[in-house]
Amino acid sequence: MIVALAGGVGGAKLSDGLYRTLLPTQQGGGETGLAHGRELAVVVNVADDFTLYGLRISPDVDTVLYTLAGIANPATGWGIGGDTFATLEMLRRYGEDTWFLLGDRDFATHLLRSERLRQGWTPTAVTHALAEALGVRAALLPMCDEPVATVVLTPDGELAFQEYFVRRRQADEVRGVRFEGISEARVTPEVRQAIAEAEAIIFCPSNPIVSIGPILAVPGMREALAASRAPKIAVSPIVGGRALKGPADRMLVGLGHEASPVAVAALYRGLLDGMVIDQQDASLAGLVEGLGMRVLVTDTIMEDDAGRARLARAVLAFAGTSRS
Amino acid sequence: MIVALAGGVGGAKLSDGLYRTLLPTQQGGGETGLAHGRELAVVVNVADDFTLYGLRISPDVDTVLYTLAGIANPATGWGIGGDTFATLEMLRRYGEDTWFLLGDRDFATHLLRSERLRQGWTPTAVTHALAEALGVRAALLPMCDEPVATVVLTPDGELAFQEYFVRRRQADEVRGVRFEGISEARVTPEVRQAIAEAEAIIFCPSNPIVSIGPILAVPGMREALAASRAPKIAVSPIVGGRALKGPADRMLVGLGHEASPVAVAALYRGLLDGMVIDQQDASLAGLVEGLGMRVLVTDTIMEDDAGRARLARAVLAFAGTSRS
Repeated sequence: MIVALAGGVGGAKLSDGLYRTLLPTQQGGGETGLAHGRELAVVVNVADDFTLYGLRISPDVDTVLYTLAGIANPATGWGIGGDTFATLEMLRRYGEDTWFLLGDRDFATHLLRSERLRQGWTPTAVTHALAEALGVRAALLPMCDEPVATVVLTPDGELAFQEYFVRRRQADEVRGVRFEGISEARVTPEVRQAIAEAEAIIFCPSNPIVSIGPILAVPGMREALAASRAPKIAVSPIVGGRALKGPADRMLVGLGHEASPVAVAALYRGLLDGMVIDQQDASLAGLVEGLGMRVLVTDTIMEDDAGRARLARAVLAFAGTSRS
Repeated sequence: MIVALAGGVGGAKLSDGLYRTLLPTQQGGGETGLAHGRELAVVVNVADDFTLYGLRISPDVDTVLYTLAGIANPATGWGIGGDTFATLEMLRRYGEDTWFLLGDRDFATHLLRSERLRQGWTPTAVTHALAEALGVRAALLPMCDEPVATVVLTPDGELAFQEYFVRRRQADEVRGVRFEGISEARVTPEVRQAIAEAEAIIFCPSNPIVSIGPILAVPGMREALAASRAPKIAVSPIVGGRALKGPADRMLVGLGHEASPVAVAALYRGLLDGMVIDQQDASLAGLVEGLGMRVLVTDTIMEDDAGRARLARAVLAFAGTSRS
């Protein structure tokens, strides 16, 4: 079992690389547990989740789900490829401010999730059923089943995460971040089991503040990770001083860090055995090693499926697992 | 003010004819009340309403709404013309039994309705807002704001209305009908005002049992209609022994009536001043007159917009209003 911690698009891409790399070794059967019989478990951030039109939307879970199912929109990394927007157009005709882009096929996911949550299913059980239906043979595990909401402190006051991220296009300076509800969150049995069985734990190149950050902030998560003997490897989402996608670079700076793999490594310090940094940042390897971890310098840019698989193999080899 | 009582497609067609006929006389302004300043109020059956994927669906209201907004699917009479079915296809991919056809644009209506009902809006207020947004300048009034559910008794037991109507394609013999929740329903202030102001009240050619039936069964509705001095005219949905659309003919027979305009007139007896029957049923005029009402024999088939307008004008003239 390989465990990946992931947020949105970057996390989904490396998870997909790991999935395709591990897939050929999968055996049939063993379908009784959520993670049982699976070679890959992806623990996904759910602190971006929010409610729109009465629907519960779980953007990071859906990005990983669609990516592993092979139906993600290749142009954006999120949403479903070839999706249409008739529902949203009609909502606009009804006078709604349709600031969050939801495709018609995407709506099906939110409708089913919302209905099942209302029926008392846990987010873990809902995600499992959606992934099963789309033929995903990895365990997709929400970081927790309790509602957690990232709140971003900006000069204009506090903003709900999607308000900051989508509606205001990450234009606000971020002076603080908090995860509402996190103290009530718990590591799920499924996540705990996956971590316990892990041969390697990969921190995907997701935003360390608002994607991996909430996962690590779930009470008991750091302890569960620390208790695992598996090598823990992070891939830097910062390359050449910039985030490959999203506002991680500006967010790091706004919170008093550098926009560099060294700052990311420092945030994960004490948890990691190794850090993977891009070849553009080769000169920073010594600084990262100074934080007490091994460093792999490689090409971390995942331009295509081959790039995802190449990085996945490199990370697994660096972790020293028998899977590489 | 002309008041129409309507169910689904047949009711929507005559309502549309009335709307187009009355529209040129409309004045601007007067937008403060739901019915105020409007020349037409359509009181619509909501006993077919049901919940699917957590969404509140109001089929008859939507059929009238889409028809008056000029966006109804001309092929079916219900749904939105040119609508697509991507959400439903994705729901099917997730393993759902998608027995109720919902278009992508149609979903927008259900999403907004459901969200606003959850926020505490009444069905009357929701319907008003949807109609306003689509530029409908008639008052669309749900028969009541309380939930009412038609239940059909068949040899296989009781069926929820949409189960009988859509899922089982009206194949079951109907031995009885009841309207769950009807004793808690109340005539809304908007419906009461429309009836009080009516110059004519038109019972559209909708199913007398499960479309007009629930409207008349709302406690206080028959009394409100009886208190109005306006001529009350029904248009028979049965022509030549058959329902023009839907199961009204078989339903009448199953419940011990004839499938004829005479049986429809008998169901409305005491409420009506006049009955409009099709020229195919001219020989039945005397029998209907024997029930104590005037009869107009005319072409009641609404093949196209011109047919709707022709029937609307004939009905208004028969009612003797100044509108005709």
